[in-house]
Amino acid sequence: SLTNATRRGLPKEKMSENGIMSRAKVLTIDTMNPTVKKVEYAVRGPIVQRAVELERELSEGMKKPFAEVIKANIGDAHAMGQQPITFFRQVLALCSYPELLSDSTFPEDAKSRACRILQSCGGNSMGAYSASQGIDSVRQDVARYIERRDGGVACDPDNIYLTTGASDGIVTMLKLLVCGEGTTRTGVMIPIPQYPLYSAALAELGAVQIDYFLNEEKCWSLDITELQRAVNEARQYCNPRALCIINPGNPTGQVQSRQCIEDVIRFAAKERLFLMADEVYQDNVYAEGCQFHSFKKVLFEMGPEYAETVELASFHSTSKCYMGECGFRGGYMEIINMDDEVKDQLTKLLSVRLCPPVPGQALMDLVVNPPQPGEPSYGSFIKERTATLSALAEKAKLTEQVLNTVQGISCNPVQGAMYSFPRITIPEKAVKEGQQPDMFYCMKMLEETGICLVPGSGFGQKDGTYHFRMTILPPTDKLKILLNKVKEFHQRFTQQYS
Amino acid sequence: SLTNATRRGLPKEKMSENGIMSRAKVLTIDTMNPTVKKVEYAVRGPIVQRAVELERELSEGMKKPFAEVIKANIGDAHAMGQQPITFFRQVLALCSYPELLSDSTFPEDAKSRACRILQSCGGNSMGAYSASQGIDSVRQDVARYIERRDGGVACDPDNIYLTTGASDGIVTMLKLLVCGEGTTRTGVMIPIPQYPLYSAALAELGAVQIDYFLNEEKCWSLDITELQRAVNEARQYCNPRALCIINPGNPTGQVQSRQCIEDVIRFAAKERLFLMADEVYQDNVYAEGCQFHSFKKVLFEMGPEYAETVELASFHSTSKCYMGECGFRGGYMEIINMDDEVKDQLTKLLSVRLCPPVPGQALMDLVVNPPQPGEPSYGSFIKERTATLSALAEKAKLTEQVLNTVQGISCNPVQGAMYSFPRITIPEKAVKEGQQPDMFYCMKMLEETGICLVPGSGFGQKDGTYHFRMTILPPTDKLKILLNKVKEFHQRFTQQYS
Repeated sequence: SLTNATRRGLPKEKMSENGIMSRAKVLTIDTMNPTVKKVEYAVRGPIVQRAVELERELSEGMKKPFAEVIKANIGDAHAMGQQPITFFRQVLALCSYPELLSDSTFPEDAKSRACRILQSCGGNSMGAYSASQGIDSVRQDVARYIERRDGGVACDPDNIYLTTGASDGIVTMLKLLVCGEGTTRTGVMIPIPQYPLYSAALAELGAVQIDYFLNEEKCWSLDITELQRAVNEARQYCNPRALCIINPGNPTGQVQSRQCIEDVIRFAAKERLFLMADEVYQDNVYAEGCQFHSFKKVLFEMGPEYAETVELASFHSTSKCYMGECGFRGGYMEIINMDDEVKDQLTKLLSVRLCPPVPGQALMDLVVNPPQPGEPSYGSFIKERTATLSALAEKAKLTEQVLNTVQGISCNPVQGAMYSFPRITIPEKAVKEGQQPDMFYCMKMLEETGICLVPGSGFGQKDGTYHFRMTILPPTDKLKILLNKVKEFHQRFTQQYS
Repeated sequence: SLTNATRRGLPKEKMSENGIMSRAKVLTIDTMNPTVKKVEYAVRGPIVQRAVELERELSEGMKKPFAEVIKANIGDAHAMGQQPITFFRQVLALCSYPELLSDSTFPEDAKSRACRILQSCGGNSMGAYSASQGIDSVRQDVARYIERRDGGVACDPDNIYLTTGASDGIVTMLKLLVCGEGTTRTGVMIPIPQYPLYSAALAELGAVQIDYFLNEEKCWSLDITELQRAVNEARQYCNPRALCIINPGNPTGQVQSRQCIEDVIRFAAKERLFLMADEVYQDNVYAEGCQFHSFKKVLFEMGPEYAETVELASFHSTSKCYMGECGFRGGYMEIINMDDEVKDQLTKLLSVRLCPPVPGQALMDLVVNPPQPGEPSYGSFIKERTATLSALAEKAKLTEQVLNTVQGISCNPVQGAMYSFPRITIPEKAVKEGQQPDMFYCMKMLEETGICLVPGSGFGQKDGTYHFRMTILPPTDKLKILLNKVKEFHQRFTQQYS
């Protein structure tokens, strides 16, 4: 008997060797969502897949020219040995298993924080759903944190949305902004080099990616004339509606000056762009003379003409800074000057996924409301935080210094964030190997040294230039070994292909 | 000077009363993503928003005809007072704060589970990212759980993807399936009544929703002739590619027979549909003679013609059953017979969001690998689990019985899941009030009694029929009071509008 499928001219069933009717699959590479196919995410791309394979081969006793794989591809602090903040984990344990509240070995401030969080949870349990926008008391704490950070600029907890890491918030905001077809399709400006979440989300949403290039010669600074060039050109073929900024920069590590941020805000106002400020590295500022300025604060200091009109979303997370708690997927976004009806739509959209993970919300609460002077855990908290941030500052400096001793590698100062993004010279002969040259370079480095980096092509770079991204997260002694291996590899590679 | 915006004929800046230039917003209800506007999610819709307002008004001392709001709108067990499983929370506390591993008050099996989980985490910390597909050892434990559950049918850990709750997995699978335009646009068959995640996700993805109606007269059973009618009609205007089943049913509470599942699988094979089995209530089966059969098991028992061809995704979560750990957003999906290239695309897509929350993954691990006979926590685990499931069974029966004593309310047996979905008679006069009649009914019930239910229109129902969804989760004594209040309200409402 004929099936509907064969009647409709779809591939027929075939008898396979073992006599089983093999039907053509419903879902194939040719019949799947075409926008998903366009998504690329190099941070966990082919190099990382090969790194995982190599780790397995090593563990199975296979011989390699290295003893271990070092994953310097991703900002995963704990995986690199960074220790969690004791206070945070004590509170999380208390929230997970409240019987511990009667355990006298836990400090009182940890207990009082845990009680406050649990009282805000349905049935006093982290196992209950929270409100879709996040737990009320956590959003209040976030608002007070932002006010302290921004020197008293007011923050309304109603503008705070807790998220599943910063990525979730960024994707949600981009989703709201996408509309139109053809030359009216939404365009979104992103820096090049960028963190590839942006290009991936835009590809999936079918929005137009508008590249603006950071100035490598000026320490990856952002140039308003370049923004202007990019938006002018883009207006020929799409409708530019949003401008994304990553500050401190990922993968580029620059920290924007206050002046630059003001200029960007003026530009966004003039060109009618929704501003998206990715500020997840706000505590990761190392270079002397550099300081983190939030877009929110600068916006409000520019007076009501800007403060009451420019639409801004800013993103933060529990994953970076001194916390490094990536696995908990905690984060928040603050939304400024958003149209009320759109805000209702945002809240509705979020409600479909029910709520962000509650342990991540609890952790976000601790990050914005850490131990205060006079509380029993204050001393150890400050000590742990300072140790982590000082070590990162030292490693940022070390990375820049060692890489710049290598002929053919040139590395801007790592002013902030967690990565170096050095430029590498790749000999002509290697460029002609037929792959992306920096992919070829990184894959070879992985096979020969066990070091896993991400090629610059995964973040975007000017044509004819090559880079890699390397985290500064390994412990100092290990980082030294790693940097020397990179140096030796680069020299060997250059020689081999010269 | 003219801005680009005014040059392009966009709304001009206007001077407002206080002298501030007011710019038209970039993002408005008219210029936002139109597919987002189409999303509806009644489980957290206007009734729930009003319930939250009422709670605030009560807490501010405002007088109401009730002392508390009872949220029977959502399957949020802990918020309703259900206690978490002690063993699960002990392990989570140990994983959060591993210093507790030397605390002698924790049982040995909790410690060994925690060690196993931590050893699978980067840097032995839940704060590290996991692999995008989820922690290897957790996926292995899930696979062994499925094998035990399905009487030995093999399960490959490579087919397991850990998710952020089941919703995340369902949305991801639907996303892969969507393609085409106009009459070739992907259509997805969903039950009516449905859990509105499905309609919301399809609206957002711009896919075509194909309704098939469950048979209320036969205890919400699924009828193959109805599936056939629905798919035949749909082929006129779209390309039906997937069939979603919720078993046990949400909001309808029916449990499918083995025979029915076989028929559905045969139908999917014949019509070339990707099967999506939402099995998050797999432990919530109460009615005598009813039993949970997984689609996977039935598929494999139907022999290679089906087992080796029919594409199936099945979904589970930590949020329901006896656990009720919604806040942790844990879940998994198992993917059968998926094309290898599509699987690579799926893994790539998931990598953009980095990983599901690790505490949720840890919890999923405990659910699929609970204390075993002979282990110290086995006794208390079984006792707690049994107590929760027996109480739910009792409350399912109680709900059906009490509701069926009310004239104008007719309630099918709650065979499984966590909800009753009774049919209600609404007098003509109330139907003519101008709102959705069951929305009007539920809003009035909320204002008069403090009971928060979800109107049937939020799940879909046959034209001219009205229902509400009510959870069976409140503690038995509270549920009795609640059911009596519903009864009294219904009688009053009927009288008022007759």
